[in-house]
Amino acid sequence: MKAELISIGTELLLGEVIDTNAAFLAARLAHCGLNLYYKSVVGDNLKRGSEILKTALLRSDVVVINGGLGPTADDLTREIVSKVTDRRLVGDPALAREIKAWFQKRHGAAYKMPANNLRQAVLPQGARPIRNTQGTAPGFFLELGAKLIVALPGVPGEMKTMFTESVEPHLKSLAGGQILVSRNLNFAGIGESSLEEKLSDLLAAQANPSLALYASRGAVRLRLTAKAQSEKEGWRLIAPWEKRIRERCAAYLYGTDEETLEQAVGLKLSKAGLTVSLAESCTGGLIGHRLTNIPGSSNYFLRGYVAYSNEAKIDDLKVPRETLAEYGAVSEQTARAMAKGVQSRAASDFGLAVTGIAGPGGASAAKPVGLVYIGLASPGDTIVVRHNFSGSREQIKERAAQTALYCLWRAI
Amino acid sequence: MKAELISIGTELLLGEVIDTNAAFLAARLAHCGLNLYYKSVVGDNLKRGSEILKTALLRSDVVVINGGLGPTADDLTREIVSKVTDRRLVGDPALAREIKAWFQKRHGAAYKMPANNLRQAVLPQGARPIRNTQGTAPGFFLELGAKLIVALPGVPGEMKTMFTESVEPHLKSLAGGQILVSRNLNFAGIGESSLEEKLSDLLAAQANPSLALYASRGAVRLRLTAKAQSEKEGWRLIAPWEKRIRERCAAYLYGTDEETLEQAVGLKLSKAGLTVSLAESCTGGLIGHRLTNIPGSSNYFLRGYVAYSNEAKIDDLKVPRETLAEYGAVSEQTARAMAKGVQSRAASDFGLAVTGIAGPGGASAAKPVGLVYIGLASPGDTIVVRHNFSGSREQIKERAAQTALYCLWRAI
Repeated sequence: MKAELISIGTELLLGEVIDTNAAFLAARLAHCGLNLYYKSVVGDNLKRGSEILKTALLRSDVVVINGGLGPTADDLTREIVSKVTDRRLVGDPALAREIKAWFQKRHGAAYKMPANNLRQAVLPQGARPIRNTQGTAPGFFLELGAKLIVALPGVPGEMKTMFTESVEPHLKSLAGGQILVSRNLNFAGIGESSLEEKLSDLLAAQANPSLALYASRGAVRLRLTAKAQSEKEGWRLIAPWEKRIRERCAAYLYGTDEETLEQAVGLKLSKAGLTVSLAESCTGGLIGHRLTNIPGSSNYFLRGYVAYSNEAKIDDLKVPRETLAEYGAVSEQTARAMAKGVQSRAASDFGLAVTGIAGPGGASAAKPVGLVYIGLASPGDTIVVRHNFSGSREQIKERAAQTALYCLWRAI
Repeated sequence: MKAELISIGTELLLGEVIDTNAAFLAARLAHCGLNLYYKSVVGDNLKRGSEILKTALLRSDVVVINGGLGPTADDLTREIVSKVTDRRLVGDPALAREIKAWFQKRHGAAYKMPANNLRQAVLPQGARPIRNTQGTAPGFFLELGAKLIVALPGVPGEMKTMFTESVEPHLKSLAGGQILVSRNLNFAGIGESSLEEKLSDLLAAQANPSLALYASRGAVRLRLTAKAQSEKEGWRLIAPWEKRIRERCAAYLYGTDEETLEQAVGLKLSKAGLTVSLAESCTGGLIGHRLTNIPGSSNYFLRGYVAYSNEAKIDDLKVPRETLAEYGAVSEQTARAMAKGVQSRAASDFGLAVTGIAGPGGASAAKPVGLVYIGLASPGDTIVVRHNFSGSREQIKERAAQTALYCLWRAI
């Protein structure tokens, strides 16, 4: 079944609000086994809203409208549905009583409810109300032969509860039981196009599950989505594909779904009972910030130095003054000395060091913006890798931090 | 002029990604004086993408397409535009060279770039490329009589830079007429509702400019928006309002528009010729990360310690072992010793220290999650302030960092 999403609200078109409802609804529709093909946003305008709904009803089976159900004159969803489906608006006395009761519960029995709230007790003829236990705006279902309109309020908390409690069971029964099950595999240390080459035969052979690659904030993700009659069957379809990809990409695949690289690093360190300390120059504390976003990180992260100045590198990390003088702060030699220095000072198993030029200043012909050395002192040996990152100052910091965490993850 | 926005990407329809680009683009289009009437999202599908673009070109003057410009076979924006406008796709040798150079810069001259990246050097005939200095996917303008297509990549950082540098000037010249001029005033150290009370008379009297308060990530912002025939007229309308607000809120108003608190801190330190060093416990490096996001921060930020363990606090910051034993790591006494310790060790003018319980573990009845002490050693004296922040681990870290930077900003 084809689903379509319409968000109504001028604030969404002015860029003042980020439409997080859309992501929630999209994910839940997919889970219910509906294929979401289109999503539209339109302002609080009767003509344009009607036009969008008319188009949606021609090409989709289920149209979910989000927003425009409030009490004020610019909340037009009821009018839009009435106009497009040619059904007049009728007051629902039971709804009116519920809305009044909601206000009295909230503000006391003596409270005089603003009259405009009764607009919310009016529905297109034939519509079935969807109760809102958390606010005053009810939603509604309207069936039109084989097509279905679902209208929900825009307030995220109210919409989510109503969708989960009332809409989802109905949609699942309509979709005939077929649902979508998804797993994301998260990669680091490899680019989107290199990963595509590595998996080209699998990507070409995909059917159910489908495979989709995308990049987000320094990580690359592969999404496997199976259509199935049940969750269990979905996972059974995904499993052999996931296994082949894991075997082929073990060096880069650090986690699944919402798992971050710092979580994967923390998990490995905890399991192995090992510790790490940090010597950050150009990343300025970002790696420490990411590691300490993980609850319990104090068990394996001992301490960090943001050694921004040469004096700090000498004083805290025991980088020899001559190394800095001969090779400079951004050099293989300095990265090595920083990594070993912090490992020894913190008495940690690993010492991870980053020194580089985040720009825009500080570069020379021999040492351009984006040049970063990552040093890792392990129990056995110390390695240093040279990188040339591109982008803005913040992107270079982000990429350096991501790559440094990846080095550590590989080494544990 | 009527504008329309099309976001392309199956991930947006599966609800895995929140479309933050849309809010950015909507706000910038409004600023350019364009009326955004429709926004659509469609998956990576040639037929449905073409259908959406065809409709958009019938009803809007400027169509901005976001996403679908990557190197892989499911990046279809080029093909969609080619099909709908009936222009064949032509390779642009200059773009191909730029893309190759980007990879060589990143991976060295010997690197063999995956061939699929050259898909990005192909554009519909007559299109004018929009340079991407931060990635490989160029965008493009395509003029069709009085209509204009603008295609931009989906990666937020790349898209935003390209829009600001290349697209905005062009759209402003097209729009010609009435524009919106906006200024954001950024506040720290005060909550949204307290600020609303302070400004209630002004908020009630607003007309042109309009005033809107909103909270975003630990900061509170007030947006003044004037409708005017020119930028100059817009600023003239805003100026007297801004002046009154500045006079009333000087202790909290640290900057305007995109200015961050760390920029404001950096500016004050630079002007005064003063330096700072950091001793971070629960913020884990976040304050250092924020300070070093500012180019030139090495002039005033000397070094930082992420003293996560007691040993680090004793060893690096000379916190007396007895202080830790008697009062604990999260205490006024420890925060004071950390601030003075780092100030003295780094020989900086200011020493800023944070120690607290970010949770979810580590709390007790006397020391709940969210308890944070911020210490600031200044040339004259040392102060410590106790805070109780709420929220998740990451929110507590964010609020502690923001408040610590605010303390420093006030003191300089």
